[in-house]
Amino acid sequence: MSTLEPGPQKFAFGPIAVGPTRPSVEPSDLVYLLADAGAWGVGLLDDDLAPPAASPAERHDVMDRLTKALDSTALAASAVTTNFHGHPMFSDGAFTSADRDVRRAAIQKVMRALDVGAEVGAQLHVLRAGVEGTGCAAARCPLDAIDRYREAVDFLAAYVSEQGYSTRLALGAGHTTGRGDTLLPTTGHALAFIGTLADPGLVGLSPQVGHGPAVADGRQHDIAQVIDARKLFRTELNAPSSADPDQDLSVGSTSLREAFLIVKLLEETGYDGPLHVDISAGRVEGPHGIAEFAIGCMRTYRALAAKARRFADDPEIRDALTECGALELAEPSVGPFSAEAAMALSAERFDAETLAERCYGRAHLDQLVTDLVLGLR
Amino acid sequence: MSTLEPGPQKFAFGPIAVGPTRPSVEPSDLVYLLADAGAWGVGLLDDDLAPPAASPAERHDVMDRLTKALDSTALAASAVTTNFHGHPMFSDGAFTSADRDVRRAAIQKVMRALDVGAEVGAQLHVLRAGVEGTGCAAARCPLDAIDRYREAVDFLAAYVSEQGYSTRLALGAGHTTGRGDTLLPTTGHALAFIGTLADPGLVGLSPQVGHGPAVADGRQHDIAQVIDARKLFRTELNAPSSADPDQDLSVGSTSLREAFLIVKLLEETGYDGPLHVDISAGRVEGPHGIAEFAIGCMRTYRALAAKARRFADDPEIRDALTECGALELAEPSVGPFSAEAAMALSAERFDAETLAERCYGRAHLDQLVTDLVLGLR
Amino acid sequence: MSTLEPGPQKFAFGPIAVGPTRPSVEPSDLVYLLADAGAWGVGLLDDDLAPPAASPAERHDVMDRLTKALDSTALAASAVTTNFHGHPMFSDGAFTSADRDVRRAAIQKVMRALDVGAEVGAQLHVLRAGVEGTGCAAARCPLDAIDRYREAVDFLAAYVSEQGYSTRLALGAGHTTGRGDTLLPTTGHALAFIGTLADPGLVGLSPQVGHGPAVADGRQHDIAQVIDARKLFRTELNAPSSADPDQDLSVGSTSLREAFLIVKLLEETGYDGPLHVDISAGRVEGPHGIAEFAIGCMRTYRALAAKARRFADDPEIRDALTECGALELAEPSVGPFSAEAAMALSAERFDAETLAERCYGRAHLDQLVTDLVLGLR
Amino acid sequence: MSTLEPGPQKFAFGPIAVGPTRPSVEPSDLVYLLADAGAWGVGLLDDDLAPPAASPAERHDVMDRLTKALDSTALAASAVTTNFHGHPMFSDGAFTSADRDVRRAAIQKVMRALDVGAEVGAQLHVLRAGVEGTGCAAARCPLDAIDRYREAVDFLAAYVSEQGYSTRLALGAGHTTGRGDTLLPTTGHALAFIGTLADPGLVGLSPQVGHGPAVADGRQHDIAQVIDARKLFRTELNAPSSADPDQDLSVGSTSLREAFLIVKLLEETGYDGPLHVDISAGRVEGPHGIAEFAIGCMRTYRALAAKARRFADDPEIRDALTECGALELAEPSVGPFSAEAAMALSAERFDAETLAERCYGRAHLDQLVTDLVLGLR
Repeated sequence: MSTLEPGPQKFAFGPIAVGPTRPSVEPSDLVYLLADAGAWGVGLLDDDLAPPAASPAERHDVMDRLTKALDSTALAASAVTTNFHGHPMFSDGAFTSADRDVRRAAIQKVMRALDVGAEVGAQLHVLRAGVEGTGCAAARCPLDAIDRYREAVDFLAAYVSEQGYSTRLALGAGHTTGRGDTLLPTTGHALAFIGTLADPGLVGLSPQVGHGPAVADGRQHDIAQVIDARKLFRTELNAPSSADPDQDLSVGSTSLREAFLIVKLLEETGYDGPLHVDISAGRVEGPHGIAEFAIGCMRTYRALAAKARRFADDPEIRDALTECGALELAEPSVGPFSAEAAMALSAERFDAETLAERCYGRAHLDQLVTDLVLGLR
Repeated sequence: MSTLEPGPQKFAFGPIAVGPTRPSVEPSDLVYLLADAGAWGVGLLDDDLAPPAASPAERHDVMDRLTKALDSTALAASAVTTNFHGHPMFSDGAFTSADRDVRRAAIQKVMRALDVGAEVGAQLHVLRAGVEGTGCAAARCPLDAIDRYREAVDFLAAYVSEQGYSTRLALGAGHTTGRGDTLLPTTGHALAFIGTLADPGLVGLSPQVGHGPAVADGRQHDIAQVIDARKLFRTELNAPSSADPDQDLSVGSTSLREAFLIVKLLEETGYDGPLHVDISAGRVEGPHGIAEFAIGCMRTYRALAAKARRFADDPEIRDALTECGALELAEPSVGPFSAEAAMALSAERFDAETLAERCYGRAHLDQLVTDLVLGLR
Repeated sequence: MSTLEPGPQKFAFGPIAVGPTRPSVEPSDLVYLLADAGAWGVGLLDDDLAPPAASPAERHDVMDRLTKALDSTALAASAVTTNFHGHPMFSDGAFTSADRDVRRAAIQKVMRALDVGAEVGAQLHVLRAGVEGTGCAAARCPLDAIDRYREAVDFLAAYVSEQGYSTRLALGAGHTTGRGDTLLPTTGHALAFIGTLADPGLVGLSPQVGHGPAVADGRQHDIAQVIDARKLFRTELNAPSSADPDQDLSVGSTSLREAFLIVKLLEETGYDGPLHVDISAGRVEGPHGIAEFAIGCMRTYRALAAKARRFADDPEIRDALTECGALELAEPSVGPFSAEAAMALSAERFDAETLAERCYGRAHLDQLVTDLVLGLR
Repeated sequence: MSTLEPGPQKFAFGPIAVGPTRPSVEPSDLVYLLADAGAWGVGLLDDDLAPPAASPAERHDVMDRLTKALDSTALAASAVTTNFHGHPMFSDGAFTSADRDVRRAAIQKVMRALDVGAEVGAQLHVLRAGVEGTGCAAARCPLDAIDRYREAVDFLAAYVSEQGYSTRLALGAGHTTGRGDTLLPTTGHALAFIGTLADPGLVGLSPQVGHGPAVADGRQHDIAQVIDARKLFRTELNAPSSADPDQDLSVGSTSLREAFLIVKLLEETGYDGPLHVDISAGRVEGPHGIAEFAIGCMRTYRALAAKARRFADDPEIRDALTECGALELAEPSVGPFSAEAAMALSAERFDAETLAERCYGRAHLDQLVTDLVLGLR
């Protein structure tokens, strides 16, 4: 089907999430595997690039093989993520641990990850706030925690500039990862935090579509707010599961209809950043399973993107959108403030009952969307 | 008990939430009732001040009685809220309705509420985003919705300035009120949105403690982020219920221990804004019930504030805090960036195993907090 | 498309949920409207059949018109529901109100609803536990509440038998409807409760697919447990919304892929009971909107049922199911207990590592399901 | 404080939950440690009693030391739990894995755990359904999964009888542990399932207070339903966290006021089974931390139990309970069915408006409860 053929989308996969049953796939092998599958980029974990237990020579070998794999496949190094979940030293957080040495070690860990990222041309460094929380809220002043997190991000952004790296930083919201009260729990909190940085230009977001609190993160208005702020540095597409948001399912494998709406938003707004999918350690079965997972995710995204194009072209849908008032919402309500505009508006008379009687035909549009997703139109 | 005696806190109550079984208490009667109960202020609903069905003379009477009541009791008009939930004309939203006339009518409604608010000296006008969402996400471009919301808030802030009102605007996050995908769903989203306004100085937040998605809004880190941004214009204290966050319970009546932590944060940071509690229509039983509810909420807050002071003074708790590293978190981790600081940090050696072995004694502190809340110390 | 043509499914719609903006559609008009739309049955609300404010003559007229409408259209009276949400007398519950007279009035209300239901040949009477909860848990002994609920259901089941009605009773789980701690909160709790009744045979369940706590009610294992217990008297198909489960959306309009799995389960197990959809007052726009809503719901269900048949027939899916071990799960693990079987099993040797290495190919099957739902196969 | 002195409650702790940073505490050491702390019993994990990698001699040593420790301390072996989370062979479930050999190995694992449990006099064997779910719901017929689970529990109950063990089986609801759609997701589902067993007498429940879906499990009505069915074999008291229910916090450390209500229910109904608390691997800091955790949990429970006694004795609370109608709820509403009773009820006249006007004074009682928990009365 032609609509499923490769397009300009930048699909990136990995790293393989840290878990008890993680299959050992070397970064360079992951690169060949993803290149064969038709991906655009690979996501990497700092501990995979520089295994903590490895000797300098072994680390050099890993990087050497990775660089060759990236060169020979032309796969992009999409992003490097710092792993703060693997070691008990971060049991109280990383940038916001109560222990100053842990905080310093955490910042150093990111600096090193930025260094190896720059070596392989990584475009993004991803910082997840999930580790920065507490199960014992009385043990910390949360204002101090915010100060420490800001200090660390400011320091790292300045480090990137000073080193001349072209890497940008992307924050991931904290949600919850077992710590009860988490720093920057939603995309909105992370977006607001960026506004308080010394140099916010280098720092953006990598929101997870549908992950996070059901009424908040990853829904249409949430992603739109990130686009509105020009901070959508990366989009993470793993399907959320309301029962367990951290399952790293394949694209659309739970909320297929909501996934369509997000894909439609991305395609309509011309988003051209990485479309990222984490790989769940507990879900993929060996290297073959990784390739199959990546191919499936891209296939689903492309099918949804093709449906988004059909949404735009379908005359009945266009009519339904007009009836719903979708175009009317693009018109200013009052325009810029002026005393005259305020006076005019003040004098206007609205008949509430007439306004309440308007039929929008939303049920009709909703059914057209369902039909479209089901392949019935 | 002396710790429960009146202090400087600015407790405000009302309006009585709109509901099918709403007891009819006139604003002026509510003022006398709250003054007798010992409250500092009253929250008002625009439709109570200017009942839609009332004649100009009747409206004048309502305002006249209210002004007299406020004068004679010295109760503060804490805030006015615009009611967008009472009329079906707002079924598609207010500032972001697909119907341009509805949007204009909504802005006009707030202007009039600002006018009557100014008449009674209201310090805040509260705008809740809960009405701005959609159950049919395909029917709107969410970027348009954000533009329209910004246009309305910009217009209203300019109106306040131009009229010379001393009122400030406080946004309430959208959470969910039956509309599926809501605009500005969390405090974080609302905070980030304020940063995109033409004149953000006049606009702040009125977060609901513990309301909203469990992992996000109303928890310690969330409120701290609003304080950090100097945008805590009002704090709403109704107890959340995980089963149903919109129940408007009395202070602390669900998560008593978490309420203690928020009260502690407010008292420690010297918060002196309004401490607001909505009154649930379905929960209070007549005027006597309202007074009892208000007295109970103030009593619980004061008891928790007294416990917060004891927390600060208790030597064993101070020792536990030191062991937890609470004070250490106030120390900068790395200080401002410099090439030298980066090089020094880069060269430092950390022993992960030693760092992982540190005992923080958080379980001990947690038990001391439980003891304190239970009145065992 | 032939797969969307009418089949044997018993689609029933209504009543129109009680809400502030409820369009006034008389029961008999609803019947004609649904018959034209191609539905099998209608769900009715006791207060619509016998409006509380109506005179005996007016009530007689309503019933007369309804009976004629049912006769002339051959539409089934699928179920009658007792409305306990419309009146403040039930603010503390109905069968479990603290006020004994309220409890008696509630039981009387159901008796009358059973009487009018029998008149129109209603097959089911639906009792929702949502009203039976408390926002003040200290005010009641929950064991008393369970006793009172059992007493009421026992009494009503005996009344049905004694009157010779052919109606069966179907319980709906309580979930939450603003009361904090709710009786029989999930389908599982309601199922267990039925086992404690004096005569459980007459009483079954009407679970809401996807409604209720995300990890519990309305998911595949939950509905299967009701089928296993032979208590699936009715299936409610409104799409859940994780943000607000009570939105009464159209079939599949949120979790389309999960809806497919439930439809597949119903079709595979030969379910032939009513497929029920509530009509949301706030969502439908006039009589035309109701018809459109019903037609859309049936269309989506039939499309999903057709996909379920394709799932059964598709050779690649059959192979994937075999690889996943789907057929193997139908084989007994150990068979009935005997000392010999236990001894044999005890002596058996299993190699954990070999067992752990098995590949199930679940990601492959998952993608086939996504393709099927999207219309790609 | 005398109210905190040891009472008849059977407090049991352990095992230490399986996790990456699990401190290695041998079962016998845990026994001495808990006995010193004043606990009544210990919970054990089968893999700790018979470490999979240990030689027969090593296993014998472990058991020998454990038996001696139990003998010399008189600590009770409260329960043994089978660990199905530690090994990837159970990635598709245990009793409901698609692989028949895995299912047989799982049943064998429980038989062995029952054998070692009987050796140490364990009173309960706990089976958690959390492992029995699927992230790929299309890969299994859920009715088969229910059949396999029933087959396994029937087999194991028969094994216990045949072996003459005095152990009883306690099911734990599935909730979610990363598997999406889980078998027996709530206490209610598990309770209903028990009713379908060949011999239900031997099988009961071990519900987790406050764990699980917010509106369902672990709340007052839910625990009461288990008591009503005489199936409360054990009560698990770890505090839930709405942000992350699996944190194994100490008793009352989140919802202190709700914990009071559950403790009150247990004390009022004369519950005398084990009061169990899991020990979180990530939260305790060494053996000293375990003892401190256990002591804190018992202290909090006893303080809440003392408050429950004060609740019963306080005259103002008794008056408030009467006003709320708490005693009235114990009275039958209609009594057993008879045609006469039905006729009498049918003829009765209720005035809805008068019934709606009753004041229950619940806000007053709610405040008395808050005061009591805070130590203000």
